[in-house]
Amino acid sequence: MERIAFFPGSFDPFTKGHADIVERGLKLFDQVIIGIGTNPAKKRHFSLELMEKVIKGAFNDDARIRVVNYDDLTANVARDYGAKFLLRGLRNTTDFEYENTIAQVNRQIVEGLETVFLITSPSLAPISSTIVRELHSYGVDVSDYLPYPLESLTSD
Amino acid sequence: MERIAFFPGSFDPFTKGHADIVERGLKLFDQVIIGIGTNPAKKRHFSLELMEKVIKGAFNDDARIRVVNYDDLTANVARDYGAKFLLRGLRNTTDFEYENTIAQVNRQIVEGLETVFLITSPSLAPISSTIVRELHSYGVDVSDYLPYPLESLTSD
Amino acid sequence: MERIAFFPGSFDPFTKGHADIVERGLKLFDQVIIGIGTNPAKKRHFSLELMEKVIKGAFNDDARIRVVNYDDLTANVARDYGAKFLLRGLRNTTDFEYENTIAQVNRQIVEGLETVFLITSPSLAPISSTIVRELHSYGVDVSDYLPYPLESLTSD
Amino acid sequence: MERIAFFPGSFDPFTKGHADIVERGLKLFDQVIIGIGTNPAKKRHFSLELMEKVIKGAFNDDARIRVVNYDDLTANVARDYGAKFLLRGLRNTTDFEYENTIAQVNRQIVEGLETVFLITSPSLAPISSTIVRELHSYGVDVSDYLPYPLESLTSD
Amino acid sequence: MERIAFFPGSFDPFTKGHADIVERGLKLFDQVIIGIGTNPAKKRHFSLELMEKVIKGAFNDDARIRVVNYDDLTANVARDYGAKFLLRGLRNTTDFEYENTIAQVNRQIVEGLETVFLITSPSLAPISSTIVRELHSYGVDVSDYLPYPLESLTSD
Amino acid sequence: MERIAFFPGSFDPFTKGHADIVERGLKLFDQVIIGIGTNPAKKRHFSLELMEKVIKGAFNDDARIRVVNYDDLTANVARDYGAKFLLRGLRNTTDFEYENTIAQVNRQIVEGLETVFLITSPSLAPISSTIVRELHSYGVDVSDYLPYPLESLTSD
Repeated sequence: MERIAFFPGSFDPFTKGHADIVERGLKLFDQVIIGIGTNPAKKRHFSLELMEKVIKGAFNDDARIRVVNYDDLTANVARDYGAKFLLRGLRNTTDFEYENTIAQVNRQIVEGLETVFLITSPSLAPISSTIVRELHSYGVDVSDYLPYPLESLTSD
Repeated sequence: MERIAFFPGSFDPFTKGHADIVERGLKLFDQVIIGIGTNPAKKRHFSLELMEKVIKGAFNDDARIRVVNYDDLTANVARDYGAKFLLRGLRNTTDFEYENTIAQVNRQIVEGLETVFLITSPSLAPISSTIVRELHSYGVDVSDYLPYPLESLTSD
Repeated sequence: MERIAFFPGSFDPFTKGHADIVERGLKLFDQVIIGIGTNPAKKRHFSLELMEKVIKGAFNDDARIRVVNYDDLTANVARDYGAKFLLRGLRNTTDFEYENTIAQVNRQIVEGLETVFLITSPSLAPISSTIVRELHSYGVDVSDYLPYPLESLTSD
Repeated sequence: MERIAFFPGSFDPFTKGHADIVERGLKLFDQVIIGIGTNPAKKRHFSLELMEKVIKGAFNDDARIRVVNYDDLTANVARDYGAKFLLRGLRNTTDFEYENTIAQVNRQIVEGLETVFLITSPSLAPISSTIVRELHSYGVDVSDYLPYPLESLTSD
Repeated sequence: MERIAFFPGSFDPFTKGHADIVERGLKLFDQVIIGIGTNPAKKRHFSLELMEKVIKGAFNDDARIRVVNYDDLTANVARDYGAKFLLRGLRNTTDFEYENTIAQVNRQIVEGLETVFLITSPSLAPISSTIVRELHSYGVDVSDYLPYPLESLTSD
Repeated sequence: MERIAFFPGSFDPFTKGHADIVERGLKLFDQVIIGIGTNPAKKRHFSLELMEKVIKGAFNDDARIRVVNYDDLTANVARDYGAKFLLRGLRNTTDFEYENTIAQVNRQIVEGLETVFLITSPSLAPISSTIVRELHSYGVDVSDYLPYPLESLTSD
């Protein structure tokens, strides 16, 4: 039986920290679906279309990776895509407390939906999307934090 | 390719919290090897032979589960058994900090050895082996915390 | 002397987690005043009037429980109601850090105002008002998380 | 109905941090029983008899305070003394994680046994028995950390 | 060689907790530059000009202390002022997790920029700018939390 | 005035994580005294004499670094060496809680003794002396974790 994981996030932008989790997840799962959660009430810094394109490029269109977007409850979307697992990275204890809560709720919403955690590689742990966005807005070169060429973000 | 996970611990005794992680791990892995780490310098409360027997019984001799014991570095033992994954449960932030450290070191010792974390079900989180041992030593009935009949622990 | 506790929160909505703390608090206190803090700048998801009504119903109009609302400093309101104690639930370490700070400040504002903590029952710990609101907004049945019939929330 | 709390610890020695919790606990409870847990396998730094005497002195033989010692499971001892509550102080998140676990187990052992937490006053939080013992063993004057005259510790 | 530290914050308002870190920082550094970060998108509660004036007054125009404001990346601003160190206070583990991340990123943006941490004095730890702002907005006398006369805040 | 820091630890063994803190500390301090705390009751894995020699070698006998050993209260020893600062590395929140407590106590024992914290570089954070000792005892090559040739440890 194929093991499918759903990797949810807002990915605004998708960072090397995210790519690290996906790549390590591919050792565990036959397919990883990267789900970009959207929220009409929240303006994105990097557009959804752009992000979908650069993520695919980052993995060289690896057939085991899909990139989708959604505006619904994560657990339901994962189930609808046939994923029996959520994949999440943990960077620190603040992440842990938050993820602990969310994981319990997701198991209640979709029975048996299992959240699998990998710990973010230490050198990548400080790189959050929030920080990359802030650095980018101040004109700092953030290419070290991205698994795709920076120009692809600005060519639009 | 078969996915094999190594689930290390001293399991003195193996609790329902441990059984929860193994069972949920079987959704992810084709085989879970329960490795009872022994330490000649540390006296066990429940004997190794007894624990191996009751753990096997707890899983009705499920062919996907092996129970082994070892006195060596966990990462090396996992590798020797062909396991590319370590399986661990997280109960709280204290666990997280400890496991974070160990996971990084294990990846350095055996390249690519990946530690996969599941969060212990909340109702089982308070049940550590230490607490079960203490309750048992004071004569408290600990059968609620064990995935096998309590008598099997004392029949020896 | 009667021991009165003030249990503050925005309760948007009041959950089974909150009800658990109130019920256990009644073993300690002669009266528990549930204080719904309002903030004109923050729009509520569930109306104040509705929430006051359903909370009272949840406790079958138990005479030891009062439900009030306020838009002022919690410590001062508690004092004005004659409460010498604040009652709070702790779910995890993030809660603890936050509550630790608030409790010290409250003791400085109203001398001797004591905050008493109970730890939320593990099975209820993941249920925050924020999560219930989000699930509800996506159409998930949240009746398992509420100590009153869900319809009472939507009959208005 | 009288509300009785059991305040367990090894109290080796009893510090101003402990006294702070007991005094604040007296606002909540009609009686506080200070239970000195003993462990034949663990040698005490300050003798049990001495500690019982100085604790009583610290509270001027206040009739609402009892000092007892025990070598059994805390939850059972509390129940046997008629206490429906355990009283505990929280200093920091490490304490919280530990106490969270213990509190859940105690509620399982003695049904309805409720653990009530107060947060240690910040200026007293760094004072643990372990630190006082270490300072004392190096000849440091620890009278600032004790709610009774230091000489009472050494007059024996 | 002169050791210059940059102490960044929004200081809305500057509290006794901040003053404590600056004063203790002066034992380590020859000059401490207090940098008030501004953000056009975020309305301040206390005006920038006012805050610059009262901070200078709090230190009696000590020549080793400069007060500046900036709207740029903290690491770059620190470097431009010749500061090789960022000075930060830690109050609790939530602070620690956040500061840990920021410190790593700052070292990457400006090579060798070192963040030096002091732990906030326990009696001052609960006083955050957020809490002082809230108390002030409810008319509470916050002079105990400020290292300058309260009137200076309201004389404008 | 010369700024002297005391860097205490048991250093059994001194690791690259420790060397990282010392080197970064030299940007802040004119002299760093590495103090190897000894405890007659605790057997060392690596001898004191050996460790003093290899630490000196690790810093090429840099005149700004002294290596001493002591069996006394850290705060008093620091004061006796003329150090007005303790230097400590923080790896994670567990470290933070522990160090927070110790730092407060040290300031009480020796008035004004200030503890200065640097956060351990993420790639070095998992390397504790405990882990290095354990790996070494199982025959793992630990030279990657040490700032001096491994042979120097075993030539004795």
